[in-house]
Amino acid sequence: MTYCLAIRLDEGLVFMSDTRTNAGIDNISTYRKLHVLQPTPDRVFVLQSAGSLATTQEVLDRIQHDLDAPGEQESLATVTKMYEAALYIGRLGYEVSQRHQQALSAVGADGTATFILGGQIAGSPADLLLVYPEGNYIRASDDRPFLQIGELKYGKFMLEIAVEADAGLVAATKFALGSMMSTAHANLSVGPPYDLGIYRNNSLQVDEFRITEDSILLARLKGMWQRHVRAAVGELPSVADFEELAARPPID
Amino acid sequence: MTYCLAIRLDEGLVFMSDTRTNAGIDNISTYRKLHVLQPTPDRVFVLQSAGSLATTQEVLDRIQHDLDAPGEQESLATVTKMYEAALYIGRLGYEVSQRHQQALSAVGADGTATFILGGQIAGSPADLLLVYPEGNYIRASDDRPFLQIGELKYGKFMLEIAVEADAGLVAATKFALGSMMSTAHANLSVGPPYDLGIYRNNSLQVDEFRITEDSILLARLKGMWQRHVRAAVGELPSVADFEELAARPPID
Repeated sequence: MTYCLAIRLDEGLVFMSDTRTNAGIDNISTYRKLHVLQPTPDRVFVLQSAGSLATTQEVLDRIQHDLDAPGEQESLATVTKMYEAALYIGRLGYEVSQRHQQALSAVGADGTATFILGGQIAGSPADLLLVYPEGNYIRASDDRPFLQIGELKYGKFMLEIAVEADAGLVAATKFALGSMMSTAHANLSVGPPYDLGIYRNNSLQVDEFRITEDSILLARLKGMWQRHVRAAVGELPSVADFEELAARPPID
Repeated sequence: MTYCLAIRLDEGLVFMSDTRTNAGIDNISTYRKLHVLQPTPDRVFVLQSAGSLATTQEVLDRIQHDLDAPGEQESLATVTKMYEAALYIGRLGYEVSQRHQQALSAVGADGTATFILGGQIAGSPADLLLVYPEGNYIRASDDRPFLQIGELKYGKFMLEIAVEADAGLVAATKFALGSMMSTAHANLSVGPPYDLGIYRNNSLQVDEFRITEDSILLARLKGMWQRHVRAAVGELPSVADFEELAARPPID
């Protein structure tokens, strides 16, 4: 499994991905799932992937191939809007998974991949889109301006709180890390190191960080998080019925 | 969907269930999923259910039938250990779902139900078990002494924190409510009112509470929870790289 998330803010975009891959529980490895692509200086893309690692790698190789080969073909250098880039990625993903579909389904495997694509092309606003294995896409909504792919349930509450709190870029990064930690804690197939990308609107450059398992930041965040949750629960207004019940001695 | 959870503590047991049922998104209703059964004064059971409502109701009717009918048959009044009660419930659940299996699978429906069974039979310790649709069971583990059925991913982190915090009966009830609220917030098919059962070891009686949507407790817990999570994230040690990045003006 995998967990990737991205948040769209007034100031910019925040991306976070785990790096764990598994083909069965005895074949665990670490692969980068957050890719920064800057085909020309006037544009920058962040591509996050969940699903088939093979399909993802073939899509990345085809993206590079289309950029390298001279010719008329569409590429990340020729698209003029973010949604065109999403459709381009979607087309590659669909073509690659279709080509291997028959062989994979014969052994019960699934070759599809889902992507989050974020970034900016100069002259248009920054954008954040989810690209489906079938090649179509959706944009992050205005009310809940975040996207998730992979194992998304465990960490969703943290992103909702971030959005409700109207977090800025720095705070959103911390919420993103909290969301990732909650997920990794609950699901063995999601794990560190975590890749973080931060994009400030109109900067046309993505700052990348890698947060490793032994990171002091991670250890501190974990301790603090647990302490605060306990404090919050302890502070709950005393419910007479519950207190009374707890104070009552057992019959035997 | 459904969310039911139960926690085993040194002092006793805590049970919480939502009440929402759905057969498609335009057929939503409210049904009790937490049932307290006391067939004789020396034993008390709490049965929580997820899955087919029809199967659950037929199982409850058969439990009552076996208690009412004179004869030699096994019932919740004749079992002498909690695991025997689990096997009995498991047998009923399997028989009921099997009887309707052919008709249901023909229309693509699933008639299985999963149960959490907790309680105590005098002379034996209180126990907590999960009964599978196939009729077998598992006990809550010593390291993670809680069980969940239904939509379990969203609220799992709260139960883990409760266990790590070595919560008592009152605190565990608050964690249980937090876990339920997190789940209901994320998934429309889980919703209030919430049924709460608290069992103190050797008391042989279960205290029941219903927490409604307009409960002051619920409103306070929600506000406090969000406030604390925000505070925890705000308190995160300042990471020089992130701060610097946020302070930097955009290029354009």
